[in-house]
Amino acid sequence: MSEIIRLETGKRMSNIVIHDGIVHLAGVVGEPGGDVGQQTRDCLAEIDRLLALAGSDKTRMLRAQIWLADIASGFTAMNAEWDAWVPAGHAPARATGEAKLAAPEYLVEIIITAAKA
Amino acid sequence: MSEIIRLETGKRMSNIVIHDGIVHLAGVVGEPGGDVGQQTRDCLAEIDRLLALAGSDKTRMLRAQIWLADIASGFTAMNAEWDAWVPAGHAPARATGEAKLAAPEYLVEIIITAAKA
Amino acid sequence: MSEIIRLETGKRMSNIVIHDGIVHLAGVVGEPGGDVGQQTRDCLAEIDRLLALAGSDKTRMLRAQIWLADIASGFTAMNAEWDAWVPAGHAPARATGEAKLAAPEYLVEIIITAAKA
Repeated sequence: MSEIIRLETGKRMSNIVIHDGIVHLAGVVGEPGGDVGQQTRDCLAEIDRLLALAGSDKTRMLRAQIWLADIASGFTAMNAEWDAWVPAGHAPARATGEAKLAAPEYLVEIIITAAKA
Repeated sequence: MSEIIRLETGKRMSNIVIHDGIVHLAGVVGEPGGDVGQQTRDCLAEIDRLLALAGSDKTRMLRAQIWLADIASGFTAMNAEWDAWVPAGHAPARATGEAKLAAPEYLVEIIITAAKA
Repeated sequence: MSEIIRLETGKRMSNIVIHDGIVHLAGVVGEPGGDVGQQTRDCLAEIDRLLALAGSDKTRMLRAQIWLADIASGFTAMNAEWDAWVPAGHAPARATGEAKLAAPEYLVEIIITAAKA
């Protein structure tokens, strides 16, 4: 029975769950008030922080789901940040769809699954 | 080649797929007619049932995705049930977004990935 | 440290990421212009192609997420194609919700996780 390691664990969710070499991150959002580009940058910086805590990094992402509160207005700006952040040759499997998020101020949420280094 | 075990399998989906120590549950919905709190309780009871069948339990959840048909009206009531149900110290990585579901009567759907015990 | 294999990798995403015996496919969409049934057939043909490239096939799917741009109008037509395509006794854990997609012409997106053969 493989051990489950949880980091930054609260009553509702853990920011990081590690099991059998796989790192599951909770959905990450940006700071309310920023536009979708800024909130995407916030998300990606937080993902870097969480992956480092988990003993992984952005070269070892397996899967990403991206939810935009308004995909028609946000897709291009989100992608500009995403494309600049993903290391060449290490892009994960990705899917992007529109979903309203926990509060209307949140414009983007990113869910990452990665492999431990 | 690891074996794939499917439980409660139909033409369209299996309620449980187990592979290499990981339990994948289909998206679970509640009973039409209930409010979002009641439907969340239905979901969580069904998840308990499915995890038990799979040889796991709610202390071994890795990841949860929660879809609410109306996140503005349902987020607080869903969380009240969720927070009471998750065992202290065992919260999974979670993401919650708005998505209309298979029929308008469904107010919440929960998708769980867990580790076998 | 298990190796990560990426196939059809671009700057933004890889169509296939394989790690530790698990195949993660990017979200697959159909050809713009087709109705939801036709676009679902496009998706499923592309999934067959990607799973073959990855050394897997549709009898070894673990999990599927299906996003429909309009679930009220598309659910029945998508399911007709899906049900005919899934091999008897091999259905994955599935969840289906409504999400607008990367462009309004896309009516359905399917995200598959499978086990390598």
